[in-house]
Amino acid sequence: MEKHDLVIIGGSAGGIQAAICAQKHHKLKDILVIRQEQKVMVPCGIPYIYGTLGAVDKNIIPDTILGAAKLTLGEAISVDRTAKTVTLQQGEVIGYEKLVLATGSNPISPPIQGITRKHVYLVRKDTQYLHQLADAMNRAKHVVVIGGGFIGVEFADECRKRGLDVTIVELLEHCLQLVCPEELCVRVEEVMNERGINVITGNAVKAIGGEDAVEFVELDNGQRIKCDMVIIGIGVSPNVHLAAESGLEIGPTRGIRVDEFQRTSDPDIFAVGDCAEKYSFFNGSPVPVRLASVATREGKIAAANLYAARWRNVGTVGAFSTMIGGTAIAMAGLTDAQATKMGYNVVIGEAEATSKHPGTMPDAKPMKVRLTFDRRSGKLLGGCACCTVAVGEVGNLISACTVNGMTMEQVALFPMGTHPWLTASPLAYQLTDAASNALHKLN
Amino acid sequence: MEKHDLVIIGGSAGGIQAAICAQKHHKLKDILVIRQEQKVMVPCGIPYIYGTLGAVDKNIIPDTILGAAKLTLGEAISVDRTAKTVTLQQGEVIGYEKLVLATGSNPISPPIQGITRKHVYLVRKDTQYLHQLADAMNRAKHVVVIGGGFIGVEFADECRKRGLDVTIVELLEHCLQLVCPEELCVRVEEVMNERGINVITGNAVKAIGGEDAVEFVELDNGQRIKCDMVIIGIGVSPNVHLAAESGLEIGPTRGIRVDEFQRTSDPDIFAVGDCAEKYSFFNGSPVPVRLASVATREGKIAAANLYAARWRNVGTVGAFSTMIGGTAIAMAGLTDAQATKMGYNVVIGEAEATSKHPGTMPDAKPMKVRLTFDRRSGKLLGGCACCTVAVGEVGNLISACTVNGMTMEQVALFPMGTHPWLTASPLAYQLTDAASNALHKLN
Repeated sequence: MEKHDLVIIGGSAGGIQAAICAQKHHKLKDILVIRQEQKVMVPCGIPYIYGTLGAVDKNIIPDTILGAAKLTLGEAISVDRTAKTVTLQQGEVIGYEKLVLATGSNPISPPIQGITRKHVYLVRKDTQYLHQLADAMNRAKHVVVIGGGFIGVEFADECRKRGLDVTIVELLEHCLQLVCPEELCVRVEEVMNERGINVITGNAVKAIGGEDAVEFVELDNGQRIKCDMVIIGIGVSPNVHLAAESGLEIGPTRGIRVDEFQRTSDPDIFAVGDCAEKYSFFNGSPVPVRLASVATREGKIAAANLYAARWRNVGTVGAFSTMIGGTAIAMAGLTDAQATKMGYNVVIGEAEATSKHPGTMPDAKPMKVRLTFDRRSGKLLGGCACCTVAVGEVGNLISACTVNGMTMEQVALFPMGTHPWLTASPLAYQLTDAASNALHKLN
Repeated sequence: MEKHDLVIIGGSAGGIQAAICAQKHHKLKDILVIRQEQKVMVPCGIPYIYGTLGAVDKNIIPDTILGAAKLTLGEAISVDRTAKTVTLQQGEVIGYEKLVLATGSNPISPPIQGITRKHVYLVRKDTQYLHQLADAMNRAKHVVVIGGGFIGVEFADECRKRGLDVTIVELLEHCLQLVCPEELCVRVEEVMNERGINVITGNAVKAIGGEDAVEFVELDNGQRIKCDMVIIGIGVSPNVHLAAESGLEIGPTRGIRVDEFQRTSDPDIFAVGDCAEKYSFFNGSPVPVRLASVATREGKIAAANLYAARWRNVGTVGAFSTMIGGTAIAMAGLTDAQATKMGYNVVIGEAEATSKHPGTMPDAKPMKVRLTFDRRSGKLLGGCACCTVAVGEVGNLISACTVNGMTMEQVALFPMGTHPWLTASPLAYQLTDAASNALHKLN
């Protein structure tokens, strides 16, 4: 029987990072990655296949990234934790010393009447399926996107870029509502409207109608939206089948339960990425944040801890960004709603200034930062930034200030560098001014 | 006699920020700003007047930024600390309760033979002088820039943008040598060369020659560079005349000595910005860093501390950025050389990846981060980033990680957000990978 020091099941972000870091941390040479996909998609690149990139093949993570790790294509169908073996669908049995589960997630398929009609697609990380989606889109004229989260909003924008008639339908009052303050949600909706996307919020989809293929989407309010294609992006559910079958504990958000070292209830088995339970940086309680950036972090942690508890996962902060048209937004940490629900008494500070200085510099545009602090401790809980491309890294700066527990006084005095081409003026730097403005509200 | 709760001498970055924050912190209404300049220049915008902006008047900080603070134009020629009064050149005597000195700095005028020839300019923050410089540049064809620091490099690039023949002369082996690792200095020199700028390093200027006006610059090695204009940017010296005359203590880098609350040796007098002594964040020893971003931070601190010690200046980190052509660079904290001189045993980590992901996204370009850690504590001491416009905020992210004393393990696990349009892949995010690579050097 084939046996390896480390077996990783799953070849996307978390599994890849675990394979890379196991080589770096332990100079481990005998690593096997088992995955089902012939080619691995860049997960967050999937919407961009259909507009910006123009081809499924432009969105591939090359296998060379795995370094010296070996690769087996196949589906792992069971884990025998006593024998320490994995069995593949094709019958092969593979022994492991340490096992990392990086089995990812599946898109949620909502119980909407008519969902099985032709030309209705979920967003799967599967090249063949995505090729089919591409073919369908080549023939489509009117697309309805169901779900106004990141994936939905990005798909809507990319479909629009190729000239399709696009409607996006969100159940909640606003798109991106679970991760953004209302003002930013409204801004993104405005941008989508300006780009000619039909935005419908606060409405549920009742049915997907048509003969054989989809012809319309019917909302709860009776409205029918004519379409020849539907894309559904309403979230994902952790793929824990293999773990559950092998008796590993499952957590409250249905991810594989892991401790702060990414260890499952079996000390020789780790879980990382979308399949693993996430815990809040702020209070340790389970949170349903599933992102490639979080998966890679967990991959690093699991790899470090293979033989002894070395690196602690202090919890998931939640840092996101996206760009709709030319409007970029980024956020990190808790939203006001999340913070309030956790019991914090929040103080908000906001600041807007031109992205370059003086404002007469070419292409200077407004850029705004909004920060949420805990009133009692003064600590930063999170924030967001909009709308220049620099906000991708400003969101990360907010994340850094948050994880380090910086107070509003400390953020107000943060030693930033500024430059006419690259940032706001030092007299109006948005991050520090937002903190000052929060502080001065308390005076 | 006119008397004010707060008098601020100096109307540039530090003075302005002190005026703004005194209003915010203390709801102080009776503030007087005394300054000599009719109009205040954006200090870091000055090189851009001569290329990108095209006019002195496009680089002005509007007086409206002062809010309710009053303004008197004039030169303060003495401070009577016993009577608590300031005397202006025109004879006026003004009383103060609290005084903030924000008297700035003067460009260093090196003892080069021929420096007084016509068409030889320093970089003064004085609109009239800068208008004269503009007139001279309108007539110039061949410019020599003496000094390869930020100001010199930026002036060289802007002169080149208007089609002039430009030579930059730096005494040290490399331009930007005092703030950048060698690799980055070389990169900037290459960019300048590609843009048609003649870069001469490791050479001193012996004389500025010509009849009445400048006709050539002669180097120590005998080489003569033909030119009809010279711009000298070799650094600044703190303007402490007024402070010294009034008996305030002066520090070792010739700035006004201040404590950690920006208080001078007189408890009712504060000093901020270029005129004030700076102390290292890393060991508290005096450092000659003089930047608008540092000045504004000190302005905030002085304003907070007017009536009681509230906000501590934990020291100057040093965070810079610039852009030459389309090549942006940013750095924060200690260079390797500075760290080694302080006694640290440094470990370097580097990582390069495309600025967007997948690398097939439009305009994806290489972006690199280089981090310097203390080997013993593992703490980040500083770092730099090159070469996309995002590095302005990546430099600030490095600054945030540095001031919070994050270790290489913590930076490796930093919870960044990533997005195809805005950042590298989460599998190759430069900041975290640079930290991982530093760490793995120790294995």
